[in-house]
This record gives sequence, C-alpha cells and structure tokens, in this order.
Amino acid sequence: MTPEVNRVHIDLADRSYDILIGAGLLDHAESWAGLPSATTALIVTNPTVAPLLAARLTAALKPRFAQVHIVELPDGEAHKDWPALNLIFDALLGAACDRQTILFALGGGVIGDMTGFAAACYMRGVPYVQVPTTLLAQVDSSVGGKTAINHPLGKNMIGVFNQPLRVVADLDTLDTLPQRELVAGLAEVIKYGPIADAAFLDWIDTNLAALLARDKPALAHAVRRCCEIKAWVVAQDERESNLRAILNFGHTFGHAIETGLGYGAWLHGEAVGCGMVMAADLSVRLGLIDAGYAQQLRRIIERAGLPVVGPPLGMARYLELMRLDKKAQAGQSRYVVIEAPGRAGLRNADDKVVAQVLEAHTR
Amino acid sequence: MTPEVNRVHIDLADRSYDILIGAGLLDHAESWAGLPSATTALIVTNPTVAPLLAARLTAALKPRFAQVHIVELPDGEAHKDWPALNLIFDALLGAACDRQTILFALGGGVIGDMTGFAAACYMRGVPYVQVPTTLLAQVDSSVGGKTAINHPLGKNMIGVFNQPLRVVADLDTLDTLPQRELVAGLAEVIKYGPIADAAFLDWIDTNLAALLARDKPALAHAVRRCCEIKAWVVAQDERESNLRAILNFGHTFGHAIETGLGYGAWLHGEAVGCGMVMAADLSVRLGLIDAGYAQQLRRIIERAGLPVVGPPLGMARYLELMRLDKKAQAGQSRYVVIEAPGRAGLRNADDKVVAQVLEAHTR
Repeated sequence: MTPEVNRVHIDLADRSYDILIGAGLLDHAESWAGLPSATTALIVTNPTVAPLLAARLTAALKPRFAQVHIVELPDGEAHKDWPALNLIFDALLGAACDRQTILFALGGGVIGDMTGFAAACYMRGVPYVQVPTTLLAQVDSSVGGKTAINHPLGKNMIGVFNQPLRVVADLDTLDTLPQRELVAGLAEVIKYGPIADAAFLDWIDTNLAALLARDKPALAHAVRRCCEIKAWVVAQDERESNLRAILNFGHTFGHAIETGLGYGAWLHGEAVGCGMVMAADLSVRLGLIDAGYAQQLRRIIERAGLPVVGPPLGMARYLELMRLDKKAQAGQSRYVVIEAPGRAGLRNADDKVVAQVLEAHTR
Repeated sequence: MTPEVNRVHIDLADRSYDILIGAGLLDHAESWAGLPSATTALIVTNPTVAPLLAARLTAALKPRFAQVHIVELPDGEAHKDWPALNLIFDALLGAACDRQTILFALGGGVIGDMTGFAAACYMRGVPYVQVPTTLLAQVDSSVGGKTAINHPLGKNMIGVFNQPLRVVADLDTLDTLPQRELVAGLAEVIKYGPIADAAFLDWIDTNLAALLARDKPALAHAVRRCCEIKAWVVAQDERESNLRAILNFGHTFGHAIETGLGYGAWLHGEAVGCGMVMAADLSVRLGLIDAGYAQQLRRIIERAGLPVVGPPLGMARYLELMRLDKKAQAGQSRYVVIEAPGRAGLRNADDKVVAQVLEAHTR
C-alpha cells in the first residue's frame, strides 16, 4: 500500500530540498527515489535505534547502493563530541568510502547534527539525508541544516550550516519512542505557536491529549505545521543573521540549564520547555505581552509533562552561561522574546531583569 | 614608505577576495584596511613563527580591534589534527569570543589549513584572513579556500571549503624561513609550470639560483604568477569537481609518501617534488609527453634540492595508500597527468603501470 505522504519544500536555491512526512515511509521505495547516484550509503545511528530500524533502512537502501554500511555512535547528548564524530570518519575511511557516498542520519537530533557535520567535513563534503526518529528531530533539528558538536565550554559551538538532500520523517518510528522523549519533542512543537502561529498554539492546547497518545493524524498535522513554519523561516534566513534566531525561543535559558547540569541530565526539549517559561516571563517583564498569555503557555508546557522550574545552578552561574550562549553579540545578551501572540523578535535584556526571571522560575 | 603591492583577485561571486603580495606588508596599515568590522582578532600561529612575527601583527591589528588574542599551535604536519584544532576553539571560548571575531592565520600551510577549518566551524562560521609566512603557503595553500586536518588513515580527509577574506603575503617573512622549507615551497612553484604555463617552467629553470638565494624581485614574480594561475583555476572550479584537481599534480604519489612515512618525516613540498617526478613518468608511460620533458622537470626538481627518489614503503603499501587518496572515485585511481607541456588533465591508470613508475623511482 502506498503511504500518504505530506511534502514540505525548503526553498534555498541550489540547496533546496523536500521534507517527506508520513507513516510507513521507511520501507517505501519512493522515499529514496531520486537521490544523486552514489555507490555507497553509510547509515549513522546509535545502539538504541539500530536494533529497531537499521535493518529496515538497510533493506530499503540496498536496491540503490552497491554497498550499505552502518556505524553506531554512543547514544545521547553527552556524546555529541569529537570522539563520537570521529567514529563516523573512522567508518568512512575504514571502508575506503570515496566522495560517491551518501550518509543517512537514522536517529534523533544528536545523530542528525553529527551526521550533517561529518558529511560537511568528510573529504570536504559529501551529501546526507536526514531520517529523524524522534519527534524533536522531526519537527526541528533535522530541518534547516544546522549541524554541530558540543564543546565543554558550550553547546553546539563547533559546527557548520549544511543542508541535507532530503528529510524522511516516518511517523511510525515514533511508536517506539520513550514517552519522556516524545514529551521533550512536544516542547519544540509548542514553541512554534508563540513565535509564529497563535492559532497553532490553540490547536495544541485542544489536541494535547491526542499528541501525548501518539494519535497519527494529530502527529501528522503537528509535524507538518512545524516543518512549514521552519521552512518559511529558514528560506528567509538560512544562516541566522536575523529572523532565524526566533527559532531559538527559550533556548538561551535552556542551553544554560543543559550546560550547567552537564549534557544529558535534562533532555534538550525539557530544558527548552522550561526555558520557554522563562523567556515568556521575560517578554512580560519587558512589557511586550500580557501575563495571561505567558500563563497559558506555561500551563500547556506543564500539561505536556515538561519541567517549568529550573534547577538551582546559582544566579551567577546562570548569567555566565547565558552570556556565553552563541547568540551573544559583543558581550550584550540578546534574547528571543514574544512580541505578540504568534510573533517573536530579538531584544537585548539587562542582567537585572533576567535575574528577576531566573529568581521567579528556579528553585 | 609605502611598499609595492601586487594584487591578484580571486573571482568567486560573494566569496571573492584579493591576494596582496609584496615586501613589508605586515606592518603596513593598508594591508588590513577594509576588513569587516569586528571586535576581536585571534592570531593563530605556532612557537616557531610567533617570536618572529606575532608582536608585529598584533601591533598592526591593534588599531582596528578592541581585543587581539594569540593562540599557538604545536608546529608541524604531525600536529595537523583534532587536538591541535581544538586549541583554537579553547582559545575562542576561553576568551568568550562571539561571532564578531576574525581569525588570522600567521604561519605556513598547516596553520592556514587549521585556521580556515576552525573559522568555518566556530559558531558555524566566522571569517578569517590568511597571512602566509612560508613560500609553500604563499604560492599554494593559503589561496583557494581548501581547509582540513589529517586523519590517521589519510591526509586532509577532514575539512571544508572556506574562502578567506583576504591573503596578505609579505615576502619579508620568507627571510627567516629555513632553507629546507624554502626548497619545499619551490616544489609547488615548479608545479605551476607543467600544469598551466610552459614558459613559466623555463623562467624557473633560468631563475632557480635567484629563487634559492631569496632574491625579492624573483620571489615576487614567482609568487604572483603562481597566485594568478591558482586564481584562474579556482575561479572556474572552486569545489574541485574537475579542473581544480590539476593543482594536485604529483600529490597522489606525494600523499602516499607522506602518509606512508608518517606525517612530518618528509615536508609536504618534498613529497610533492618526488611525486611530480613520478607523475611525469606516468604521463610518459601513458604516451602523453616525451621522456625529454619529464627529464627536464626532474632536473629542475633535483637542482632545487628536492628528493627525486621515493622511500622504500613497499609496492603493496604504495598502491594501497594511493587508492585511499581522496581523488579516487568508486575504487578507480585517477591521476593528474601532463597532457602536454603546460597543460594537465586527469586519467585513470592501471595499477600495473603505476607499479612500473614506483619501481623506477623508489629505492
């Protein structure tokens, strides 16, 4: 049976590509048609995803590639580092892969970010395809070409912009996702409401139970709408000189939490969920939105099962971590704020106001 | 006194830039005018170059940047690796450098390649300037945007294309260059003759003594002509889909020597010198050029003081190393050959013929 495919196009001149969204895409031959000719496919995945999906992706790619190799990276944000990245290069060189190679990122955001970065760097560039298997990756990290690894002094500090050839988001891969991961992904889904589509936040408010129960039509709508918004933003500002920064709503606070606790203690989406509560409060304190809108957002985040109170890192450490966040420009801390329901922008904020926000939302 | 500046333009649309060539450019304010505004400069150099030149470059940049930092990487091809690259990221993050930062590569090819790669990856891209202080870097590696580090299984396997903002080639910096380094640089100078300009090879033949004696007008002519040729090639084929590969004349054999001996035993230019003797002989055996032309080239390489006989790595190892060279496509080994004096091209060659070449030119 031919699965129903939702197609979202990312318009970036010669780097344009499609996002395919649907149930059953992994095993569907059409999902892999039309890729540039290459002799070798390398599937990059991790020990959690591999037993569930690697054999199926291998079988789907076999008709199109003379060789299909697999490399497994250690699972989790704590391993989004050089030693793990180098495992991809070891695998490529160990199998004598030349430039006629396509990488396939089969996993969540960490796998996607590392595969995209490795593809950009291997022999100065081979193409790659995103096959996101978490909700977070399907709605956010697999789309838009941001790739990176972490540095002990900051998250995603080392990386490049590198667009994939295609994104294949198979909703069936979410069936085996642990609930905590699904919930973390919902943080990025929720994000698109306040920054770009007020009506979408209301839709989420109404359909949260269906999303948490992994209802396929609800997930299909959510993933598609998120990708449409992201496509619209990325097409206008691929390299984040301005508009694209709004996609980082909640992320400056969230990154501080992640870095402060050590990568992996909280999931990225959890930190972003809590960070959005803080960023919404900052927007209130800057006089941009009503306290009522921030409370609606906080309620949805909490009902989704996400943390809404930050860990006790200490005020000085929070502020230091946020200054280091890469959106800082010449020592001034810029924040993504809600300018009005469904519209985000950038504002410089005084450490004093930020401290009030942190005071109110950490224990 | 205003120094005489030769200017060569690299035409690459929005990535276009100038190469400035002349004596005394380092201390000349005009060399640094017109760079994009930024708050911070990070000079990347090594312990050999730093005591000679870092203070002068710092002084020249001070009027234009609020902060000028320096980071020293361990010297030599053996350290063209991740731990050394990471020292640049440590320095950038340790000084809380944001995206308003320009890197300056003050040194030879290793420093230039690593600085350009680090610039591409820091916060997904900050700009950089090449300040090459070796002949090899001035005529070749600082121009064209190839950046990389080595992997234990192959040279320059991990990197990206990343064009600098500008190249400032101060011929005075060659005064302190060890003679062995100068000679190694001459290998790349000689290279431009057989691949692109037959008359230039004759000019080198005539002026070799002046070049070896570091005569400034002779060096100025050689650096300028090499950069002109490289600019012409790179402008047509920035990402080496075809024509640009001719710049790798002698390099497949040379890389095999470098990798086989372990990085740093031979200088890159020494390996390329010997590699050109082999590649010229391959061109003869493929029926493309006279044995006489290959002999003229060999004589010039030898008179320059470069090795013309390869080390005894063993035939099987040589062939294995060359198959791994990144110009290999789908398992077939392609070689840059001389099609006629002053014109190069690509040919697939049988391992049997390559083995004959190696047999004739190794001990």
